[in-house]
Amino acid sequence: MSSPLRFSIEAKCSHSEARVGRIETPNGGFDTPAFMPVGTRATVKGLMPEQVAATGSQILLNNAYHLMLRPGDGMIAERGGVHAFMRWNGPILTDSGGYQAFSMADINAIDDEGVTFKSIIDGARVHLGPERAMVVQNNLGADIIMAFDDCPPAAEPGQEDPGAATAFRHRLEVAVDRTTAWLKRCVQAHARPEEQSLFGIIQGGPHEDLRDRSAAAITAMDLPGYAIGGVATGEPPEEIHRIVAHTAPLLPQDKPRYLMGVGYEKDLVRAIQAGVDMFDCVLPTRNGRNAGAFTSTGRLQLRNARFKEDDGVLEPGCDCPACSGGFSRAYLRHLFISGEMLGPILLSQHNLRHYQRLMLDIRRAIREDTWSLLYRAWPVLGSGPAALSVADGARLDPSS
Amino acid sequence: MSSPLRFSIEAKCSHSEARVGRIETPNGGFDTPAFMPVGTRATVKGLMPEQVAATGSQILLNNAYHLMLRPGDGMIAERGGVHAFMRWNGPILTDSGGYQAFSMADINAIDDEGVTFKSIIDGARVHLGPERAMVVQNNLGADIIMAFDDCPPAAEPGQEDPGAATAFRHRLEVAVDRTTAWLKRCVQAHARPEEQSLFGIIQGGPHEDLRDRSAAAITAMDLPGYAIGGVATGEPPEEIHRIVAHTAPLLPQDKPRYLMGVGYEKDLVRAIQAGVDMFDCVLPTRNGRNAGAFTSTGRLQLRNARFKEDDGVLEPGCDCPACSGGFSRAYLRHLFISGEMLGPILLSQHNLRHYQRLMLDIRRAIREDTWSLLYRAWPVLGSGPAALSVADGARLDPSS
Repeated sequence: MSSPLRFSIEAKCSHSEARVGRIETPNGGFDTPAFMPVGTRATVKGLMPEQVAATGSQILLNNAYHLMLRPGDGMIAERGGVHAFMRWNGPILTDSGGYQAFSMADINAIDDEGVTFKSIIDGARVHLGPERAMVVQNNLGADIIMAFDDCPPAAEPGQEDPGAATAFRHRLEVAVDRTTAWLKRCVQAHARPEEQSLFGIIQGGPHEDLRDRSAAAITAMDLPGYAIGGVATGEPPEEIHRIVAHTAPLLPQDKPRYLMGVGYEKDLVRAIQAGVDMFDCVLPTRNGRNAGAFTSTGRLQLRNARFKEDDGVLEPGCDCPACSGGFSRAYLRHLFISGEMLGPILLSQHNLRHYQRLMLDIRRAIREDTWSLLYRAWPVLGSGPAALSVADGARLDPSS
Repeated sequence: MSSPLRFSIEAKCSHSEARVGRIETPNGGFDTPAFMPVGTRATVKGLMPEQVAATGSQILLNNAYHLMLRPGDGMIAERGGVHAFMRWNGPILTDSGGYQAFSMADINAIDDEGVTFKSIIDGARVHLGPERAMVVQNNLGADIIMAFDDCPPAAEPGQEDPGAATAFRHRLEVAVDRTTAWLKRCVQAHARPEEQSLFGIIQGGPHEDLRDRSAAAITAMDLPGYAIGGVATGEPPEEIHRIVAHTAPLLPQDKPRYLMGVGYEKDLVRAIQAGVDMFDCVLPTRNGRNAGAFTSTGRLQLRNARFKEDDGVLEPGCDCPACSGGFSRAYLRHLFISGEMLGPILLSQHNLRHYQRLMLDIRRAIREDTWSLLYRAWPVLGSGPAALSVADGARLDPSS
């Protein structure tokens, strides 16, 4: 299938499956591994597009589900698509809306045609299926669009109840096969393959055999990229890592691999070491709006009284507008305690810059084999996997 | 009295009392007539300091009342004052807190010592009087600080009731004399006259004889500047204009004149023509947060359905980040309808820039006698006062 997406791998890690690359789209390129800020309703909450770009973010994500319901994908199409609408000149990725439709909506029916639910805006009956998801995303006009997948809410109900576990496994089997069938219909329905690159999504929940089955079926279709879906919906980090480490190698080496909705810094590094190239997550912006600041040594909750007279910046040496601008923790706390918008604005920029500085350092670690420096500079990552520690002499330094 | 404030008048209008000048303070200078954005809690809501500066704002206002209650003026003093705390490198003015204490607070007592009220933060009993207002403002460290004045809420109760009107006039007489007595105490208590310039405030409500009495007493004290208080609390524009036109000429020619809390564009122009040099008002930022956009032809309410598919910017030719960035009215409406912070952020910048572009044009009109161009470029100002129309040939153009 013809695609406007070009993926080039520029360096590979000698210790792991990690790789550094570059993805070019019709609206510009981005370096991988890449972290994509979430701009649900065609805005990264609280930030001007230039401020998002200044964090080092090169591509962002919009949510098809929200934009379809309001202001409407047809309305956005008439305005020239999401890039023109939100004034973001770089690459954009849209999800299919499936995840939200299956997890957030007041659902009336799920069947082989898709999901029917009540609109959160006006209660109207809305149907979303593979064809409609393609129309919506063709209207929105993002550079990368996602297949409509069947993603049942992930929290496995009653693990001690064998009946429930069996029922949930059966539901996941249905989801795997339905996702394959829907992907074929998405490929058929996709009306702008010369401008927008459609990624397939692997399902299968926690079951490795279902992941195998899904990956085999999805990668049988030649697509510009593949995503791992159905993770990071509440499972512990070890469980995320197990699924990702199993699934990533099942995807083609020469195509971008996108892990949807993950995650914390450690989760990203482990997924990158398993060969993942792209990430999106609400954590930096959502936590930032709630006074949670990411730092290299862990997270700060700025409402805490211990910051009341703290004249330090969030993270010494950080080049974000909050830190380089000299805004103290005491001032930031004052903003949050007073309900002032500038608090979320400054922390969202800091947190996104934190993630993008981490991605910069990870890309350097892959290129230059400087993993030990990475773990030293980012204590929040822990001491790293044992395999890396052994292979990497610097890790023997007891001070690191 | 020694003062670090230098005021130079650079041009005078040949048609009116308007003048163009420059005020220098220890933290930089600003051009007059000047419009000061309101940054109540040491932040102009939703904007980075650099974004405030980019609107052309050269000085801003902080509210002593709010900052005294939270995070506390002593805490801010320990952090180096409001400039360092909020990272604003230009001049700052603080009000005395009197206006809020008299109008917003749950008041326990008002007497010659000041006002005692319950804190809106924790219900604690707080006293504010002339000495305390100086301590607070000395702690906050603004370049221009305001006298603690007795400003009774302005809405005149029961004008048809002669008894109520007499009682209110008596209250205003008390306020005038108390404000004079308190100013003497403020001058005595002011501990940083070499760094901070104390302005006196004229009271007297709508009564011209009381304004005369107040102006005579206040200007008898040699201060770096004088303000007109007790207006713009609900009266019609004609009433504001009558009071300002009467009071401004009572103030020294060679000192800055500051009209507190005013106002709409027309109100500013009329006050400037009466000889006023400085203004502050919440309108551009407060209206902006509520989807109200100022334009040269009037205000837009962006929630209105008529903007749903409006691809135009707020004001063609405006150089604010919203207009020059190409954000459409349709997109801005979407942001407000969706409750997205970026809506208030963009409109606050646009509205502040609107005010600052107006001030630029007014300063040019004064310098170059181009009032006709001003009224033509800003239809929201109306056709201008009759005196100017007659004196200014271009106003005879029926198309203008």
